[in-house]
Amino acid sequence: MSTEKYVYTFGGGVAEGNKSMKDLLGGKGANLAEMSSIGLPIPPGFTISAEVCKYYNEHDEQWQDGVEKQVQQGIHQLEELMDLTFGDAADPLLVSVRSGAAKSMPGMMDTVLNLGLNDQSVKGLARKTDNERFAYDCYRRFIDMFGCVVMGIDHDRFEEVIQKLKDEEGAELDTDLGVEELKELVDRYKAVYRKSTGYMFPQNPNEQLHYAINAVFGSWSSKRAKTYRKINRITGLLGTAVNVQAMVYGNMGDDCATGVCFTRNPADGTNELYGEFLINAQGEDVVAGIRTPQNISKLKEVMPKSYDELQEVTEKLEEHYQDMQDIEFTIQQGELFILQTRNGKRTGTAAIKIADDMVNEGLIDKEGAVLNLVNPGHLDQLLHPQLSQSDVDEKEIIGEGLPASPGAAVGKVVFSSEQAEKEHAQDHPVILVRIETSPEDVGGMSAAEGILTSRGGMTSHAAVVARGWGKPCVAGCDDIVINYEAQSFTNGEVTIKAGDWISIDGARGLVIKGQKPVEEPDFGDDFHTFMGWVDSLRDMKVRTNADTPEDAIRARKFGAQGIGLARTEHMFFGEERIKAMRRMIMAESDGERRKALKVLLPYQKQDFIQIFEAMEGLPVTVRLLDPPLHEFLPDDEEEIKALADDLQISVRDLNRKIRLLKEFNPMLGHRGCRLGITYPEITEMQTRAILEAAVHLKKEGKKVQPEIMIPLVGTAEEFIHQHEIVDHTAADVFALENEVVDYKVGTMIEIPRAAIVADKIAEEAEFFSFGTNDLTQMTYGYSRDDAGKFLETYMKEGILENDPFQTLDEEGVGRLVEIATNKGRKVQPKLKVGICGEHGGDPSSVRFCYNLGLNYVSCSPYRVPVARLAAAQARLKLNGEQQTENNNRRSELVSS
Amino acid sequence: MSTEKYVYTFGGGVAEGNKSMKDLLGGKGANLAEMSSIGLPIPPGFTISAEVCKYYNEHDEQWQDGVEKQVQQGIHQLEELMDLTFGDAADPLLVSVRSGAAKSMPGMMDTVLNLGLNDQSVKGLARKTDNERFAYDCYRRFIDMFGCVVMGIDHDRFEEVIQKLKDEEGAELDTDLGVEELKELVDRYKAVYRKSTGYMFPQNPNEQLHYAINAVFGSWSSKRAKTYRKINRITGLLGTAVNVQAMVYGNMGDDCATGVCFTRNPADGTNELYGEFLINAQGEDVVAGIRTPQNISKLKEVMPKSYDELQEVTEKLEEHYQDMQDIEFTIQQGELFILQTRNGKRTGTAAIKIADDMVNEGLIDKEGAVLNLVNPGHLDQLLHPQLSQSDVDEKEIIGEGLPASPGAAVGKVVFSSEQAEKEHAQDHPVILVRIETSPEDVGGMSAAEGILTSRGGMTSHAAVVARGWGKPCVAGCDDIVINYEAQSFTNGEVTIKAGDWISIDGARGLVIKGQKPVEEPDFGDDFHTFMGWVDSLRDMKVRTNADTPEDAIRARKFGAQGIGLARTEHMFFGEERIKAMRRMIMAESDGERRKALKVLLPYQKQDFIQIFEAMEGLPVTVRLLDPPLHEFLPDDEEEIKALADDLQISVRDLNRKIRLLKEFNPMLGHRGCRLGITYPEITEMQTRAILEAAVHLKKEGKKVQPEIMIPLVGTAEEFIHQHEIVDHTAADVFALENEVVDYKVGTMIEIPRAAIVADKIAEEAEFFSFGTNDLTQMTYGYSRDDAGKFLETYMKEGILENDPFQTLDEEGVGRLVEIATNKGRKVQPKLKVGICGEHGGDPSSVRFCYNLGLNYVSCSPYRVPVARLAAAQARLKLNGEQQTENNNRRSELVSS
Repeated sequence: MSTEKYVYTFGGGVAEGNKSMKDLLGGKGANLAEMSSIGLPIPPGFTISAEVCKYYNEHDEQWQDGVEKQVQQGIHQLEELMDLTFGDAADPLLVSVRSGAAKSMPGMMDTVLNLGLNDQSVKGLARKTDNERFAYDCYRRFIDMFGCVVMGIDHDRFEEVIQKLKDEEGAELDTDLGVEELKELVDRYKAVYRKSTGYMFPQNPNEQLHYAINAVFGSWSSKRAKTYRKINRITGLLGTAVNVQAMVYGNMGDDCATGVCFTRNPADGTNELYGEFLINAQGEDVVAGIRTPQNISKLKEVMPKSYDELQEVTEKLEEHYQDMQDIEFTIQQGELFILQTRNGKRTGTAAIKIADDMVNEGLIDKEGAVLNLVNPGHLDQLLHPQLSQSDVDEKEIIGEGLPASPGAAVGKVVFSSEQAEKEHAQDHPVILVRIETSPEDVGGMSAAEGILTSRGGMTSHAAVVARGWGKPCVAGCDDIVINYEAQSFTNGEVTIKAGDWISIDGARGLVIKGQKPVEEPDFGDDFHTFMGWVDSLRDMKVRTNADTPEDAIRARKFGAQGIGLARTEHMFFGEERIKAMRRMIMAESDGERRKALKVLLPYQKQDFIQIFEAMEGLPVTVRLLDPPLHEFLPDDEEEIKALADDLQISVRDLNRKIRLLKEFNPMLGHRGCRLGITYPEITEMQTRAILEAAVHLKKEGKKVQPEIMIPLVGTAEEFIHQHEIVDHTAADVFALENEVVDYKVGTMIEIPRAAIVADKIAEEAEFFSFGTNDLTQMTYGYSRDDAGKFLETYMKEGILENDPFQTLDEEGVGRLVEIATNKGRKVQPKLKVGICGEHGGDPSSVRFCYNLGLNYVSCSPYRVPVARLAAAQARLKLNGEQQTENNNRRSELVSS
Repeated sequence: MSTEKYVYTFGGGVAEGNKSMKDLLGGKGANLAEMSSIGLPIPPGFTISAEVCKYYNEHDEQWQDGVEKQVQQGIHQLEELMDLTFGDAADPLLVSVRSGAAKSMPGMMDTVLNLGLNDQSVKGLARKTDNERFAYDCYRRFIDMFGCVVMGIDHDRFEEVIQKLKDEEGAELDTDLGVEELKELVDRYKAVYRKSTGYMFPQNPNEQLHYAINAVFGSWSSKRAKTYRKINRITGLLGTAVNVQAMVYGNMGDDCATGVCFTRNPADGTNELYGEFLINAQGEDVVAGIRTPQNISKLKEVMPKSYDELQEVTEKLEEHYQDMQDIEFTIQQGELFILQTRNGKRTGTAAIKIADDMVNEGLIDKEGAVLNLVNPGHLDQLLHPQLSQSDVDEKEIIGEGLPASPGAAVGKVVFSSEQAEKEHAQDHPVILVRIETSPEDVGGMSAAEGILTSRGGMTSHAAVVARGWGKPCVAGCDDIVINYEAQSFTNGEVTIKAGDWISIDGARGLVIKGQKPVEEPDFGDDFHTFMGWVDSLRDMKVRTNADTPEDAIRARKFGAQGIGLARTEHMFFGEERIKAMRRMIMAESDGERRKALKVLLPYQKQDFIQIFEAMEGLPVTVRLLDPPLHEFLPDDEEEIKALADDLQISVRDLNRKIRLLKEFNPMLGHRGCRLGITYPEITEMQTRAILEAAVHLKKEGKKVQPEIMIPLVGTAEEFIHQHEIVDHTAADVFALENEVVDYKVGTMIEIPRAAIVADKIAEEAEFFSFGTNDLTQMTYGYSRDDAGKFLETYMKEGILENDPFQTLDEEGVGRLVEIATNKGRKVQPKLKVGICGEHGGDPSSVRFCYNLGLNYVSCSPYRVPVARLAAAQARLKLNGEQQTENNNRRSELVSS
């Protein structure tokens, strides 16, 4: 009877497992097998299959017959490959033990290092490294680690003991303890172990190994791991595998070294080894910064053979992983070991250059480069000015908030929108600092270089508006307290007054004292080459959300293929306009309302002419007035008085009217098409402005594609009602102007009910655009302005994986998007469908939209390149998955 | 070649059509045919098929060949049956022309009466009625009606003329004009007609008829009718049919009469003819009240033959329609004609008695009686005290608002909750009058006999709370203006001061000056017999929403089979409780919060003990704390000061903290399970209170079925999180008490997302309860508190058919209920599913829930009998439909 295979060895250029065996070997084990197979010099080891874990947990902590024996064989093979003996007093083999399931998860057992150390082998280690202090330090750490991780002893018990010893010896730091003290510490640690477990610390390495393996298996069933799997619905896994791997040391003499290196320069992308190393040292010495490491190029001089080997390995790695790698290595007595390799982090500039180079070098094809070598975050970095990192001193950072909108901004502090506009008019750069912002602040926000708020989340008003404009913003910086009266803010230590210079880094959320230098973005040829590939591989359109001609022009430069959302409400905030708008809101009759609207018409028309012109004939979707009218009313006494004078009513009466307009839940109130239905004059005026603008341009021989979008539709009846007003007004405009323009009428799907009755709406609508911001608010029942109070707890407790306002919730909101798209297309197969919420610029949401077959995504101008890349990647991923599916089907056919 | 049939005659006890031919004959035509077929003496006539309308509208206003001829044959048959001649100078046949499609709709042509009158036949009519004034008055009205309705002349044109004539003659009323003036008026009207149309007024009755028929056909394509059909999605109809029917007159002499009667007494249900008549009069004389009609019993003396005939007809009608009928009749020269019959309106008392009697008389079976003879509104009437109608004088009505909660209440006016409580303590009955109410007013609302508000809709706070308690309420009465400072309200004419008596009728929305007598409801044997049948025919359970032991006891009396929703927030409003609650809310640490909760625990426990006891072992679903915490905080300065003292902080600091808790959209804010997740102590305390109460009763040998409901769940993870706290706390309580109680943990489905991921939630939940109030708010994106601003317009414009907060929106919200139920049951086939929103007491929503297979509906105590009846009716209707379906299938099988 042949025994099942439970243990899979790797090392010496071969492996029994491979990367497809994740279920059995876990992610880590499968990867180690893979690396060994391609001939990388990794420290040898073996993986115990997750099946053993399953058996262990189901059979009262027993192993299957044969596992014990296979583990012993694994150890023997290790001993042979390393030419060492497990537990040997002179030349001990030491190993690490790690957990590793098919899916990574917290709550699993931590790593145990240096297993195999005991009272004898510690001496061998001391001799071999010629460093007795190192050996005993390893030993005392091993007892601590084994005690805590494997036996569940409270780490504080060990801490108390070392603290007591340090007090006795007058030592301040751990490193102040000498060899003799460490030997004493080992004894005292063993006593803690004995007292806590009732047993002596195990001297037999096999016993140590057995316990450690079982501890890994046991951690699979820990409460924390179980809860995590339940909440994250990780099911169908056997358990965790266990990886046992030989320890290697870079501190056994001058023929030893340890280092880290990138296969290319991660800062600028140059194709050269980039990294550093230390002779006769451990990995942590490089990180700790006690000794200064040497540049990797020096290795060529000191250890030419190892350097050549490293060169060779990096080439092999790049060829295999088709990406730049970040490597940890150790040279033990002249022999190179790769401890770890992973895709290297890099700057945006480097990412683009590496992608271009690797394609030119034939290492990867364009599809691969677009799919894997540049991520959306890289592009985002490239598009904004940056603070030069070398010029920022840690000590100058006076606050850290949310990285609400990337880019750097430098200016003098102002605390009001008016002040911002005043300074801006004199060409003074300012940073607008507010507790939070509201639509009334948009003037000042627009005038400022950047925005800093002390309250509000990633989706607060300040954050959303700033991202839309690509303006740097640090939001919710609760390190600082703002005092409007005193015209200053403070972090408790430093106080900044109005007029003082500060710099903000919106990509990292930093607030820095003083005027820091800023580096402008430089796109260069590499960028254009790369984006050319992106567009050639993309088949979903990318539009932009733009409310002004400036936005539109910027977005065109970034490659936008139309406007997916032109909000009209911001157009009413100019001085003359807001006056007319307020008169319109306060009108007591249709007649008065029409009169006020008549004043607004020419402004709106002019806005649309400019936006249409900027888009040069590409489609422009204009959303009719959306926010509740009270948002346009003044808050402060002075403005209220001015308005009362203008309306020739008393302040008291005006205040009463303003109060009447206030709503308990404005988000769910009198807004969107509800306005257009109760006040059809508004819809008429806006339609007139849009179509008169279109006619005007057409008469000049220019192309225009206006698309009129009815917001907040929840029933087909609402849409029909507004559609009729639009058509009626259009006929009127065309008759008067003696010119006809093609226009489309569609709706935003942003109310859950609209998604459910999308088929009915599609009978009448020419396009759908998902307003996923509001759709998320209503589908979850979360007010974006208020959810900050609990969303943080939700993310911490794992109740939500992502902030649903940043990444589309596929399971809930996404399901409504899918239902609406399918229902709509069923009735009208060619229905144009897009998305114009914040998610239009979020890569994973873009992918979701692509997979649903949407025609376009629309996002803020600065996100357009990101969305272009995400759209191309989405297509490549879907193609890849379909190919895999086809291949699987093919192999099924072949094997059957 | 035989011609198609286009014209269907009826009359003389036979008919060519029948009730199944609605598509061709329209609803009205099919019904006339039916009445004729069963031998009712209706005025004869004929119906022109809707096919002609279709042809007319598709073929340039032409009729099919043969229609003209069939219409002529119809007229001839009429002439024969009536022994009259169309257009005859001596003995003219006059007819009415009416539209009538398969579905009734506004925007169609109005009725034309007395068609056939011309300069000659008017003299015949004068002779036959011996009333020249009547004849010419008919004629001038006919010209006006024909001109306006058929030819589209503006009615004002005729009005101007008659006004001028009256001015000339010094006449004040139309009735002041004598015969000669009417003859003059006829001439002037003909001139108007000629001037407006360019043609003479047609003297040929056939020409008149032709025009009238075409006008009906044309009105099908009017803009108004088209828009109505589009918005209401009425499709697939051919067009409208046209009904031409002989005119009969009750004013041709003393052998003529006209009257109205009910087949039974509509006030108390007694089986006797009930009505009145006038000799030698027209129908409008009865209505106009110029002559005093006689009791119908007198007809027996005056016209014994006709009376017997009428008796016979009413029996035939009751047998045929299986319901009490409301009849209009005319006796023309000794011959009885039934002009109209319909199911008679009746009081609740009458409805119950008629149902019981008709079953006993064998006229209808129990199923039929339950299904058709009593409607939920009847029961609603019965359950509340009523104002005695005879005691209310129109002139005493000082305002009319929304009928927010039925029943009558009488009391002295108070304007504040405190005052209401004070007066109540001294046993003074009061009516609480507020602009609107908030949760702070519940004390006063509870103390008052009834509630009157000047603002807010059918689902405003006042309305919802009042209905819940069965307390009379008139809401949104904008006839009155309330002045808190002056302690009075006025409708402009009458001013009512605090302390003055008023009476309100919540079923009709009336506010009446003074102290009116009130009649207490009396159920009696008939009611119990009927409700016994209802329950025997019902298979869906009816629970109640009840927050107090008093509610629970009342609901049990009304037949509730459990509590579907026990809200816990009202339990925190007592004086000591609110103090502890506020301390809990303001706690700066978990410790402080726990301390405050500890104070609340015994109160909650005591509440639950009483509620469980009242329900005598039936299931009780307790919802954990739901509203945002700021709802518990004080508004007015005095209370804020008291709280600040209690908390030992400054008023300024407290105000700041209160401001921080305020939310932009509290409906979508930090509430429901979001509270339980951020403050698990709250969930723990409430669970402890519920289960300690349950254990307490079990130890006393009593049965308890607690069901713990987690509110506002949107993700499975939230539910799992709270479920674990509940289970953990339960284990703790049971261990401490050494007693175990069965309990269920389930959730409210009230967030759209929860419906979409219901399968995931059902894996963990033991029951679902649809909170359709919030589900409606979020699915539509309507804030109940704010939607008043546009809902009225929506209903007026036909955008919404019903207020979705009163009747469940089946297409949108209902679809989510269906999705959630199906998804939930797919995972857990025996999942208990109910509904606990306001809709649980709305008959059509109850039917919808029944058809979806829900286990129960839960509604306020006073709606329980209504829901029981609606549930029984739902079952009978579904059975009926399934039977019809089976029959249809059977006949298909037979015919194939």
